[in-house]
Amino acid sequence: MALIVQKYGGTSVGTIEKIKNCAKRVAKTRDAGNDVVVVVSAMSGETNRLLGLAHQIAEIPNERELDVVAATGEQVTIGLLAIALSEMGYKARSFCGFQIPIRTDDAYVKARIRTIEGDTIRKALKEGYIAVVAGFQGIDDTGSITTLGRGGSDTSAVAVAAALEADVCEIYTDVDGVYTTDPNICSDARKLEKISFEEMLELASLGAKVLQIRSVEFGMKYGVRIHVRSSFNDNQGTIVTTEDEIMETAVVSGVAYSKNEAKVTIVKVPDKPGIAARIFRALSEAKIVVDVIVQNVSVTGYTDMTFTVGRSDFRKAMTITEKAASEIGAEKVVGDDRISKVSIVGMAMRSHSGVAMKVFETLAAEGINILGISTSEIKISVLIDEKYTELAVRVLHGAFGLGNPSA
Amino acid sequence: MALIVQKYGGTSVGTIEKIKNCAKRVAKTRDAGNDVVVVVSAMSGETNRLLGLAHQIAEIPNERELDVVAATGEQVTIGLLAIALSEMGYKARSFCGFQIPIRTDDAYVKARIRTIEGDTIRKALKEGYIAVVAGFQGIDDTGSITTLGRGGSDTSAVAVAAALEADVCEIYTDVDGVYTTDPNICSDARKLEKISFEEMLELASLGAKVLQIRSVEFGMKYGVRIHVRSSFNDNQGTIVTTEDEIMETAVVSGVAYSKNEAKVTIVKVPDKPGIAARIFRALSEAKIVVDVIVQNVSVTGYTDMTFTVGRSDFRKAMTITEKAASEIGAEKVVGDDRISKVSIVGMAMRSHSGVAMKVFETLAAEGINILGISTSEIKISVLIDEKYTELAVRVLHGAFGLGNPSA
Repeated sequence: MALIVQKYGGTSVGTIEKIKNCAKRVAKTRDAGNDVVVVVSAMSGETNRLLGLAHQIAEIPNERELDVVAATGEQVTIGLLAIALSEMGYKARSFCGFQIPIRTDDAYVKARIRTIEGDTIRKALKEGYIAVVAGFQGIDDTGSITTLGRGGSDTSAVAVAAALEADVCEIYTDVDGVYTTDPNICSDARKLEKISFEEMLELASLGAKVLQIRSVEFGMKYGVRIHVRSSFNDNQGTIVTTEDEIMETAVVSGVAYSKNEAKVTIVKVPDKPGIAARIFRALSEAKIVVDVIVQNVSVTGYTDMTFTVGRSDFRKAMTITEKAASEIGAEKVVGDDRISKVSIVGMAMRSHSGVAMKVFETLAAEGINILGISTSEIKISVLIDEKYTELAVRVLHGAFGLGNPSA
Repeated sequence: MALIVQKYGGTSVGTIEKIKNCAKRVAKTRDAGNDVVVVVSAMSGETNRLLGLAHQIAEIPNERELDVVAATGEQVTIGLLAIALSEMGYKARSFCGFQIPIRTDDAYVKARIRTIEGDTIRKALKEGYIAVVAGFQGIDDTGSITTLGRGGSDTSAVAVAAALEADVCEIYTDVDGVYTTDPNICSDARKLEKISFEEMLELASLGAKVLQIRSVEFGMKYGVRIHVRSSFNDNQGTIVTTEDEIMETAVVSGVAYSKNEAKVTIVKVPDKPGIAARIFRALSEAKIVVDVIVQNVSVTGYTDMTFTVGRSDFRKAMTITEKAASEIGAEKVVGDDRISKVSIVGMAMRSHSGVAMKVFETLAAEGINILGISTSEIKISVLIDEKYTELAVRVLHGAFGLGNPSA
């Protein structure tokens, strides 16, 4: 008998029919003799509907109150799922964030979980209940309702699993698991049986929308085995776990991409201390998140500096940078909002040389110009013209032998 | 500077536009130097939508979980109203039932308020906030969410006003106040300036849908001055208060009616002890609420017994009564589900004779047959054929001089 945490996302509970299907899956896990804790999101579309109401009143709604409104989405789902389970003859009990409690900081709309009290749920499980927990929400020290931001239910599920020391946290979604790349781009993309937390973290942050990034961080920190799988079939999905558990590691595990990028280049920046700080302080004050930063060593007393931002921040970033550039005596600022970022990720990259070279050669062979490069221990990202995104993903996927041999 | 509790019902917060209008009214009261606590219902239609979701899953949904779902309606409204007030530059803070807390018993879907802790709201008011409180909901001793049943927000408002010793509890609704009778039936119906709790209680229970009956009981018990008024204009409404405060009392204050009635008569019941108990126990076990009961003194060893039930319970009541009647040796059971109840209510009725006689004479003059009579200290109800309802209301309204002289 195991303790299993299951998380169902918005599309898995999007209709009454789908909620009933979830109930059946939960019941099956229960019938197999397991203790089950279910964490659910709002029905798909519901969070947007609620936020839409608030935005009809204020462009920037009071954030404490926005959370009060948004948190109702998950509350409705836990009630409905508990009703469905009761109707099938199971003992089920729903829990809002405040009832557990799931304690967070008071950063409304993007709160972070601090602690989860496990006793309330443990007591319910002991009494034979299936516990149905509202994802996405918590409560701060003053008793105000908080929400964790988009995708927060994944984090709720992994955090609950950590607090209860669950055997596994199953994340049910609309895909079968984590793939070597987007199957819409590479028809021979292969489902990974296992992947390390570190790799998943890089993939999650690079635009593979399977798991919310903070849930992976939580999993890594507390060693929670995460099983990503589909709510529409019984296939084995992908296990996200510690590196130790993965016997044989591929040099490269996957190719990720993000089209939501824009690039700003400051031409002929005087190479003096404090210049970079001045530009990025201005961007930071405007709450613009800068991703990749590339700056070459200067040989002439001047340098060019390039950085990327989210595409929606592009115009604002250009204006701010142009102002800062003229103040520091740079020549000019040029930008491009039609670029994308393609990345390869793999644990064994650390101990293999020649990976970067292979990336560059592969892209060069297709005539794809590299506009910028950024690397970490287990990742290489290149910036390219957006129109080459799919081509680049396909050739890299092939070059590193990621495809399904039978495809 | 006064402490004013304002309650807005579902139609007053039914759209974003209406929520903004509520915010303006609240702000105006605040600007006049008052402390304001606002209690709101769910947006109109929302509670039905939520219950509808639950009923798609189960005919009789688990009641604890049904309350979890239903309580979200009010939670959305408090958030939106607080956002609207913040947007206008006012300090506003929303409160769910659990945050105050409003403690109830654990009778889900029809919980009763036990205590309201006033400190949380008092602290917020002291800090300059407008407090926005979710009506209809509370929390039981185990921390589960409860709801008070339909119309419960009125009760929440009056109970909050009692706990805070507010100067007045304003109930905003879609009518101007309490009228001498239904203006749709009598065009000269007159708005009452004041009415006593006792009279209001009789009117509320008789089908004048202005105030929820338990809210009036609360008001009477704790001496909360209630002001029933329209959220669509600034007219003075009707004050519901203690008898002492009402200087000159009319003999009759209003005429109420209910068409939702059905009548069951057991013919030739043996007049022995325990017979009535036997019949009404059977009805009670089937959760059928019996309203008026009429039984004459027996002179022959037999008696006829008549009682009324809600029209939706008529068929069930007939079946149960027929079974009980044959067991106790009564001759037969006859029923009629097309009857209505018309009542006149007035405090001064106690000290005036001839009121009942005037009722009977007035109806007789119109050829309206009385099928049953029930009286209390301040009320006379008659059962009549449903088709005469409007006529009976009009002639009684006129006979007791209730009409607006200028109409």
